[in-house]
Amino acid sequence: MSQTLNRNGAGKNGPLSDTLRLLYAPVADEMAEVENILQTELRSDYPFVDELVRYGNLLGGKRLRPALLLLSAKAAGKVTREHCVLAAVVEMIHTATLVHDDVLDEADTRRHLATVNSRWTNEASVLLGDYLFTHAFYLASTLDTTFACRVIGRSTNIVCEGELRQTAARGNYHLSEAEYLEIIEAKTAELCACCCQLGAHYAGADAAVVDKLYGYGRDLGIAFQIADDLLDVLGDESETGKSLGTDLEKEKPTLPLIHLLENVTAEERAELVELLSGPGDARPQLGPWFERHQSIDYARSRAQHYADQALSAIRSLPSSPSADVLTLIAEFVVNRAH
Amino acid sequence: MSQTLNRNGAGKNGPLSDTLRLLYAPVADEMAEVENILQTELRSDYPFVDELVRYGNLLGGKRLRPALLLLSAKAAGKVTREHCVLAAVVEMIHTATLVHDDVLDEADTRRHLATVNSRWTNEASVLLGDYLFTHAFYLASTLDTTFACRVIGRSTNIVCEGELRQTAARGNYHLSEAEYLEIIEAKTAELCACCCQLGAHYAGADAAVVDKLYGYGRDLGIAFQIADDLLDVLGDESETGKSLGTDLEKEKPTLPLIHLLENVTAEERAELVELLSGPGDARPQLGPWFERHQSIDYARSRAQHYADQALSAIRSLPSSPSADVLTLIAEFVVNRAH
Repeated sequence: MSQTLNRNGAGKNGPLSDTLRLLYAPVADEMAEVENILQTELRSDYPFVDELVRYGNLLGGKRLRPALLLLSAKAAGKVTREHCVLAAVVEMIHTATLVHDDVLDEADTRRHLATVNSRWTNEASVLLGDYLFTHAFYLASTLDTTFACRVIGRSTNIVCEGELRQTAARGNYHLSEAEYLEIIEAKTAELCACCCQLGAHYAGADAAVVDKLYGYGRDLGIAFQIADDLLDVLGDESETGKSLGTDLEKEKPTLPLIHLLENVTAEERAELVELLSGPGDARPQLGPWFERHQSIDYARSRAQHYADQALSAIRSLPSSPSADVLTLIAEFVVNRAH
Repeated sequence: MSQTLNRNGAGKNGPLSDTLRLLYAPVADEMAEVENILQTELRSDYPFVDELVRYGNLLGGKRLRPALLLLSAKAAGKVTREHCVLAAVVEMIHTATLVHDDVLDEADTRRHLATVNSRWTNEASVLLGDYLFTHAFYLASTLDTTFACRVIGRSTNIVCEGELRQTAARGNYHLSEAEYLEIIEAKTAELCACCCQLGAHYAGADAAVVDKLYGYGRDLGIAFQIADDLLDVLGDESETGKSLGTDLEKEKPTLPLIHLLENVTAEERAELVELLSGPGDARPQLGPWFERHQSIDYARSRAQHYADQALSAIRSLPSSPSADVLTLIAEFVVNRAH
């Protein structure tokens, strides 16, 4: 998840960059099996549907959630056939949310690829997202018990609630850091936590280990989202491969901005809100403000705090290549936003 | 489902009209329990989310799918607690598809209420639909086995595939009747069939009866959709309580049009396609064409054919008030479009 990973990630020649392939080495065979499942499941007899669902399968290129599920499984016990099915399920759900997010954000590119809404239509995007959601739930229901359906149904519902809260927070420049954290915990961290939980649970780990991995996934997800929000302010579109500056454009308050607004005078706040509510890219003008109030550094330190918490959650796991990779991911997650 | 039912349906004072309440009398207690479940489940601690999900709960006002599930159960055996949960699940899924359809159709009204996209935003509609889908799947997973999750996951995926095929068919004035029927079987009839199947299965009916009720639901759904498409051409917005003429406007070929285009000369076809592809409401100009080629009568006779098939599927069920209502529904389904 360093910039190198982002730069090489996804793209035309298959879903994984060489760097990610190396990182996921402890679960390489299982990741290949997940790709098989995704390719087998995401097909249709109808050409338009087939083209669309195959394209959708390329958009979530980093495969972070399947990797978290499988690495958690191997770090906590034994990987089974169920893990591979569930890893495909969480990837489909993640892709469904991405495709719908791209409609909401009116984004043009995602992982260096045209978004579904820009290449086809908003209509195709809404329906493709629904197709992926429903297919994911169907696939989860092919396991023996309702456990995975229940965990995934609940988590996914929390994700949607978080997204709805984020919509309601648009243009709300009084959003507190605590509310922001609650929202990103729901919309981003919950699915990561769910992946790690399912991995550990189906590996036969005891409840305490399942809880630890759930906590790891949640804190990693929070750190990841803060870093992602920082990238939206700081980043370079050619490096990240997706439309940037959309948070500000869509008046989504993110952590650097929340910090800044809490640390300026009433007059400065009014000036900033006017700038943020106006047309055009506010990023160049915001730069000096962020610098003066160290808001970027603050947001980065909060991301680091959650990454550190993620690391302590798994410190007591027995040493293994998979546990090492989980550690590495948490160590690198904040680096994305440097 | 006569026009009276439509005229009185839904609205401000609770979801069911007096006529529908009478019709659903054999399962009145269970329908009340379904309302309880929907009201309990569709809530949120966050005001914006809460307002939105409660509003969503009013949009599917006829409660046809829960009624089909419960009536099938009672006609085939005994209604259980599981039936009520599943009836709430299918209503949530139906509402999710309605909310997303209204985004795609840019519709303003639905059951005399403003659509979510017109009252709030497309963004809120996309996320509310996702919230309802995921909540429905979560609720289905609270049952003892994966059976319902599997049936509902599969059916819902077929619905989405049908909707995607319909999108691809937009502006395709060479769509055949067979392709049209396949699409409406997927996008509309499949969920009705699934309701009747689940009702019979959880009532302990044997496989032959489950199959019959599945067939009843499918053929009823096809008849219902043909009648609905006819209404879009013929209907009166004040009576149906929803935006009409959108099929033509969105260049969705429906049965009367497919029949007409198959029965005109090449020159007439070119003239019609120009009319259909142009701006404005084509309905007034199409009227005489439909009349000359009896395309409305033809579509109505096809709807009647499927309604008749639905009726024969359940003819051998033991006589009961619930079986009588299923019969009545199939007898009335085509009347909507008179």
